[in-house]
Amino acid sequence: MALVRPRTTADVAAALAIAHEHRVPVVVRGAGSGLAGAATAPPGSVVLSTARMTGILELDPVERLAVVQPGVVTADLRAAAAQAGLAYPPDPGSVAFSTIGGNVATDAGGMCCVKYGVTGDFVLGLEVVWADGTVSRTGRRTVKGVAGYDLTSLLVGSEGTLGVVTEVTLRLVPAPPPALTLVATFGTLTAAGEAVGALVGAGLDLSALEVMDRTTLTAVDDLTGMGLASGAGPDRRTPAAMLLVQSDSPAAAEVLARAAALCTDAADLAVAEDPAEGEALMEARRQALPALERLGDWILDDVCVPRSRVVALLQRVEEVAAAEGLVIGVFGHAGDGNMHPTIVHDRSDPASLAAAQRAFDAITTAALDLGGTITGEHGVGRLKRSWLARELDPGTLAASRAVKAALDPHGILNPGAVL
Amino acid sequence: MALVRPRTTADVAAALAIAHEHRVPVVVRGAGSGLAGAATAPPGSVVLSTARMTGILELDPVERLAVVQPGVVTADLRAAAAQAGLAYPPDPGSVAFSTIGGNVATDAGGMCCVKYGVTGDFVLGLEVVWADGTVSRTGRRTVKGVAGYDLTSLLVGSEGTLGVVTEVTLRLVPAPPPALTLVATFGTLTAAGEAVGALVGAGLDLSALEVMDRTTLTAVDDLTGMGLASGAGPDRRTPAAMLLVQSDSPAAAEVLARAAALCTDAADLAVAEDPAEGEALMEARRQALPALERLGDWILDDVCVPRSRVVALLQRVEEVAAAEGLVIGVFGHAGDGNMHPTIVHDRSDPASLAAAQRAFDAITTAALDLGGTITGEHGVGRLKRSWLARELDPGTLAASRAVKAALDPHGILNPGAVL
Repeated sequence: MALVRPRTTADVAAALAIAHEHRVPVVVRGAGSGLAGAATAPPGSVVLSTARMTGILELDPVERLAVVQPGVVTADLRAAAAQAGLAYPPDPGSVAFSTIGGNVATDAGGMCCVKYGVTGDFVLGLEVVWADGTVSRTGRRTVKGVAGYDLTSLLVGSEGTLGVVTEVTLRLVPAPPPALTLVATFGTLTAAGEAVGALVGAGLDLSALEVMDRTTLTAVDDLTGMGLASGAGPDRRTPAAMLLVQSDSPAAAEVLARAAALCTDAADLAVAEDPAEGEALMEARRQALPALERLGDWILDDVCVPRSRVVALLQRVEEVAAAEGLVIGVFGHAGDGNMHPTIVHDRSDPASLAAAQRAFDAITTAALDLGGTITGEHGVGRLKRSWLARELDPGTLAASRAVKAALDPHGILNPGAVL
Repeated sequence: MALVRPRTTADVAAALAIAHEHRVPVVVRGAGSGLAGAATAPPGSVVLSTARMTGILELDPVERLAVVQPGVVTADLRAAAAQAGLAYPPDPGSVAFSTIGGNVATDAGGMCCVKYGVTGDFVLGLEVVWADGTVSRTGRRTVKGVAGYDLTSLLVGSEGTLGVVTEVTLRLVPAPPPALTLVATFGTLTAAGEAVGALVGAGLDLSALEVMDRTTLTAVDDLTGMGLASGAGPDRRTPAAMLLVQSDSPAAAEVLARAAALCTDAADLAVAEDPAEGEALMEARRQALPALERLGDWILDDVCVPRSRVVALLQRVEEVAAAEGLVIGVFGHAGDGNMHPTIVHDRSDPASLAAAQRAFDAITTAALDLGGTITGEHGVGRLKRSWLARELDPGTLAASRAVKAALDPHGILNPGAVL
């Protein structure tokens, strides 16, 4: 119905007060890079864009915190923190273009999570505009604090359904040493999954533990020309899977040596010779989704299973791909059990589309069957709303609806997302 | 009015269903070691004790998680985790006798927080009985997960006012190497505070950064006979303050050497020769409150300020003590800016009691003035309920009350605490 592009918190408050009075739905939109449709505005709604709220208001090296508007691009904050000798670890795959507001709305993850946690682990406080236009602050600027309910965490991951975040106070950390990177390739996906289990089980200080399967490696090569899939050894066959293992520990060389020794079934093992080479490999990993997008239409899943069930999930995905006759590229945050099976299909072919939807359902169901979750880091949005009742019990759903009704009594905030 | 001692979740659910129907207040009580009065039941209420819910139901070294009932003593869980080669870092001062349920209810902190965070950072999921007796699960068993609102974090720190926690799924970590400990003494509290600023600012990998002032050191010596306050150097004067600096980094020796170099104004510096000596020093620190309790009646504060304001807070406490003619022992988690000024007085003397109350008010006000919080880790309970409106704005208070009303419509859960 309309687009609102506020510059200030007062602008947002004014817009919400009007929307509340007139019962008009409001959908907040950051970069539009979300993968679960939380920012997809239904007809009749007002889109509230954060594109003009791009200020880094404060970057305090003593308190190690940053205060930013929601429209700041994640990579821009990371660069600003680095200039101050600090780090903002969260690094969703979309880090180059997603915004902090969207990261907060989805509680975005990334490759850092295996060591540093998710976006919410770095949010100290928020400025929020409630549904009726009231402006509040939640949380704190101190390291610790337990004054009242943790509304900050309640808002993180609520995908714009409980309030509109207009300012974020983020914890920063001392810049870690440059990470060293171990690359390990495997002849089967299962062998790679078993190595993940061994690496995680050993409790090594790893700052990333990522996986790409053959389909993904080939697609990334086609996009980047990096030759990841060219294989090693005399036969130079494309590996079935590659693990990227990073450590930013002060003892990283020793950590990676131990990691290499645990990859007993690896076809090939190599430590990147300098941090730039390691960073290039991680950038290749970030290109997994853009690369797979070039293969055709795609549906991306985002399931997370207990770490010991990664192998079982990978096997299930292989079975589903075979049963449906589809290409399913698999990549993800293996160290967290958080996988992104990407189902390639032809949307113009009803049989292919139906097969892709069956595959998506089968993979998401498998995650639940394995004790996992329907979404590890992308959120529920509109894509997985119908799945939520399969994961949460009726009492938790009822409590969630009660909280939603309490904070947004007219239901104007992103209706149709999450609940 | 009555005491309920459930053994199972079903017992709790039955009790709450009856209480809900008859509008009877229910106050959950763990070890009763809380310091803000959240478990102090008002007349007419039912006390629901978790003393019989002491099961460690699961301890999974592969997934690195534990599932426990709320009445498990924190130290017992830590010991069980250690036996499995893992660690449960949260270590409130009451670790030897407080329970996990109480730790979750208050989002308890401790000495580990400077590196590992607070209790809530380790809570993956909860089993909760809502006010009407409905049993639900929140959260997950996976490393990551964003399916629906983060009701787990909302419940953590809610001090029994939103639901009754009957089971807790906790993240464990690989057991770190034994920590090395640096002891630094200072001639003035300000010099110690400045060393804290330097240590924190350097971003060293410290696993504890604790402070005790002269009053506390002397009291601990009187209790333990350790001779902490005997001083060093030819004059052997009691130091004004002692810092305990720990690192469990693989490079701990190097970290502590750097830490020592930053303590430029220290009167004395020593590295504990073995981990047992370091642990004895930390145990002495844990005796700070029991030691100060022996000096007379006491009121304990729990304020947390931005790290750069620790010196200002310490100075303000000294001014308050001088102005009121009171002994105020200061100890706390210096690296987090979380201090526990302990006001010694004589409750039977109205003038002394009034002075102590003025001192408490002045110190808590100072924390707010310095950009801090009225409670770093003990919670609001009944002790600081009237302070909450001085820290939170009206919109955040209104949102908190709306959430409370949504989840506990008859207001039976711990009425009078927090809000």
